[in-house]
Amino acid sequence: MHSTPEPLARVRLAVDCMGGDHGPSVTLPACRAFLAAHPQAELLLVGTAEGLAPAKGWDRCTPVIATEVVGMDDPIEVALRRKRDSSMRVAITQVKAGADGARAAADACVSAGNTGALMAVARYVLKTMDGIDRPAIAAVMPNRHDRFTTVLDLGANVDSTPEQLLQFAVMGSALVSAIEGREEPTVGLLNIGEEAIKGSEVIKRAGELLRAAGEAGHIRFFGNVEGNDIFKGTTDIVVCDGFVGNVMVKASEGLASMMGDFIKDAFTRSAYGKLAALVALPVLRQFKRRVDPRRYNGAALLGLRGLVFKSHGSADAMAFENALARAYDAGRNRLLDRVHDRIAETIQAMPVNSTGTFDARP
Amino acid sequence: MHSTPEPLARVRLAVDCMGGDHGPSVTLPACRAFLAAHPQAELLLVGTAEGLAPAKGWDRCTPVIATEVVGMDDPIEVALRRKRDSSMRVAITQVKAGADGARAAADACVSAGNTGALMAVARYVLKTMDGIDRPAIAAVMPNRHDRFTTVLDLGANVDSTPEQLLQFAVMGSALVSAIEGREEPTVGLLNIGEEAIKGSEVIKRAGELLRAAGEAGHIRFFGNVEGNDIFKGTTDIVVCDGFVGNVMVKASEGLASMMGDFIKDAFTRSAYGKLAALVALPVLRQFKRRVDPRRYNGAALLGLRGLVFKSHGSADAMAFENALARAYDAGRNRLLDRVHDRIAETIQAMPVNSTGTFDARP
Repeated sequence: MHSTPEPLARVRLAVDCMGGDHGPSVTLPACRAFLAAHPQAELLLVGTAEGLAPAKGWDRCTPVIATEVVGMDDPIEVALRRKRDSSMRVAITQVKAGADGARAAADACVSAGNTGALMAVARYVLKTMDGIDRPAIAAVMPNRHDRFTTVLDLGANVDSTPEQLLQFAVMGSALVSAIEGREEPTVGLLNIGEEAIKGSEVIKRAGELLRAAGEAGHIRFFGNVEGNDIFKGTTDIVVCDGFVGNVMVKASEGLASMMGDFIKDAFTRSAYGKLAALVALPVLRQFKRRVDPRRYNGAALLGLRGLVFKSHGSADAMAFENALARAYDAGRNRLLDRVHDRIAETIQAMPVNSTGTFDARP
Repeated sequence: MHSTPEPLARVRLAVDCMGGDHGPSVTLPACRAFLAAHPQAELLLVGTAEGLAPAKGWDRCTPVIATEVVGMDDPIEVALRRKRDSSMRVAITQVKAGADGARAAADACVSAGNTGALMAVARYVLKTMDGIDRPAIAAVMPNRHDRFTTVLDLGANVDSTPEQLLQFAVMGSALVSAIEGREEPTVGLLNIGEEAIKGSEVIKRAGELLRAAGEAGHIRFFGNVEGNDIFKGTTDIVVCDGFVGNVMVKASEGLASMMGDFIKDAFTRSAYGKLAALVALPVLRQFKRRVDPRRYNGAALLGLRGLVFKSHGSADAMAFENALARAYDAGRNRLLDRVHDRIAETIQAMPVNSTGTFDARP
């Protein structure tokens, strides 16, 4: 349905080595492991001279010095206006194309810095794409098929309009086609099921838009899905407002972590539990691997004129490496072009009505 | 802060014995176990003559015959307009006070019938309380303290106004004081954390109203909470719009069930896993008990002129018995009076401004 662009032969990532709870002690080992696994990758390591010292002389790595670091608790204003030479901002600047359209220094950038600051700086430096009202945050969650369900938006937007929800659907489709290699992924609209008839006006209208886009072949629209469908893997993509998505993903993280701790508790509380743990450990490890949040680290900030990926602040080296790998796949498979093309195609086909919004009814 | 009404000496529940996926084969054994554990309880068993046959002659039970049954897939319209003699409707009617204020036949009613139908029929038969715009659905979720976090609304309302969110907070406080015995439970407003400054206007305004109500001593307002706080048990009550709550609770159910099945998988997939399961079983059971959804079955429909509790449709006898026990505690501790008193007190104290909404700013 959509043309598949030729993958890049070489991919260059800009890495904010200072971001996250642990900084270079996590990001540099992650970069090293990532390079070993990706022979076609090059890295721009962005950080303070001191922070980057351990990486001196690394193959396929170019240090880019920044003098400041955005702290995990820094307010957005500080990141945006005061720390103009932060590793976060310098890393983002590497993915900005030249004014003359010259290719950017890097194909994608990765930071474990705080989400609010990263989004604000990325929007300021890169600007949003034509046809996109606001960028969105897309992340993957595990599902029963041992695949990933991509969910967006996870908190960049509240009170999203139906038009924005359509944009999320289109951008999410581009993302999954680039990273997971499923060219026509299915899209579900998060709703509350049987109550939908009485449901929110925004969601009903979004449903109409998504249905029209589906019928026109711009996306593969499945229909409404409910909260549990995320983990059932009913659709490849689940589209929702950022408020709903953020609550859902944080509740899920909280529940998974509580359940994990309850299991640990049970196997350490009593002498018998400890004994049983010895026997059960290999089995529990197998279980743990399937729901290990490190495996699906690396959220995409979509809708900007450059690819930015956000790692969890608390990521360890394995988790950060996964974020690098996701950014690599996105860069390699030209996610930026894919989003651009899909959005242009969808918007051209959807006539804007008198209220300035798309018109789903022909 | 609030007066504690005297508990009732005897509590009578109306039970829709036909509701749910399993009908009398689950509800009747649950009733029997419940009666044995609650010597001060009486039951009105509502159902078809055939359905109630096994309960003939049971002590402290009075059969109430209904000729129709609302199916789990029946549209709301069918439940509301066509099946006027359904066990669901007859059970709800038992908690309706007489026109002259005469005491209702039962103190609370319990049904495992479908949520949409139950809410619609309950609203139609009982009407909403003065000061309540729309009823809400409140349920409990497990938390790290091995206590319950009460969350509302879980899907009765979308696009809730700030005033409705305040009503949820007040009703939730009455519920927790009646059922859990914590007279001044804490209330959190579900929000998305650091992004809150840019957050939804409705939530910001709701925050002002809840803060004002907290300062006036009507509720104990903690402030904003995030999705993970539900399972951390940061507050006794979490207040949210029904769309957000419904997505969150369904995603949580989906995730918990996926994790449970992954554990089962790991312990059955290989010969070693099966062997390990023999040793680990008592420990896993201990874990399972802590997150067993049957333990927290029984959602309250709040804001009506009568107490209605909703059991999961798929509940087994143990789960249905828990719903009966929650309804019993609510009836015994006069939840209806508590909601009424708290709402009256809060609304009187919050002057309505020129736009017809409460004014949090004095």
